[in-house]
Amino acid sequence: MSASPTARLEAALAREIPLSRAIGITVASWDGRTGRLAAPLAPNVNHQDTAFGGSLSAAATLAGWSALWLLLDAHGMQHQVVIQDASIEYRHPVTADFTVECALPEVSTVERFLTTLRERDRARLGLVATVGSPGRELVRFQGRYVALRP
Amino acid sequence: MSASPTARLEAALAREIPLSRAIGITVASWDGRTGRLAAPLAPNVNHQDTAFGGSLSAAATLAGWSALWLLLDAHGMQHQVVIQDASIEYRHPVTADFTVECALPEVSTVERFLTTLRERDRARLGLVATVGSPGRELVRFQGRYVALRP
Repeated sequence: MSASPTARLEAALAREIPLSRAIGITVASWDGRTGRLAAPLAPNVNHQDTAFGGSLSAAATLAGWSALWLLLDAHGMQHQVVIQDASIEYRHPVTADFTVECALPEVSTVERFLTTLRERDRARLGLVATVGSPGRELVRFQGRYVALRP
Repeated sequence: MSASPTARLEAALAREIPLSRAIGITVASWDGRTGRLAAPLAPNVNHQDTAFGGSLSAAATLAGWSALWLLLDAHGMQHQVVIQDASIEYRHPVTADFTVECALPEVSTVERFLTTLRERDRARLGLVATVGSPGRELVRFQGRYVALRP
């Protein structure tokens, strides 16, 4: 447990979700609020030499999962995280290696989530993950995740 | 071009979308209206020994893409197919090897789609893909796809 949170997350992803290895996911950064996963284009390419929608969807699913994992880890909480539902918009093609960014919602929402989780051992959080830059989102993903005691 | 449509689709998926190989996708059946893709659980497993949501999302994305590919192939049309947006509900865990089924919408909708595509070289079709049985859907996916002349 001496490794950094992002190193432990990366190991957990590789160990527990083998498809993340096929996608080539690495944990690029985490500042306590925003997490970024990176993936190369090559293993995720489609018939148009852009990123396959299913790869982007899977990477975004992992970005939300990872942000929640890192949040719980920072609070010493060991809950399981599962996804309940999601939607995704493919706004522009992704033509190169990419990162998926997921920022936690505002502090009051996160606090309410953590309080509910402590009281009821189960709580839900909506997360947004994006590929691209703020001025030009290539992909926008919204997912609802549930944390629960195993 | 002498192979069956499903054999050609399977070759196209393996050649053009490498992640479909990592997921272990095979084309299980196509009756001219409903297509089924199959995937093993092992490469798609998550931290709970059920299918990872991102794998299910990617497989469902491919199921819709494949149904549209097979429809166009049956009409001798060579358009590209891309996904525009999608939503997915994870209703129950997928605990074993799985199939994703995608049925084309009613005939009048498909005819309108094909007419628009012939007239304008671009048309959009909404498709539903599911994992599970009609009485018990484990996963429900809705995607909007665009076919366009390359």
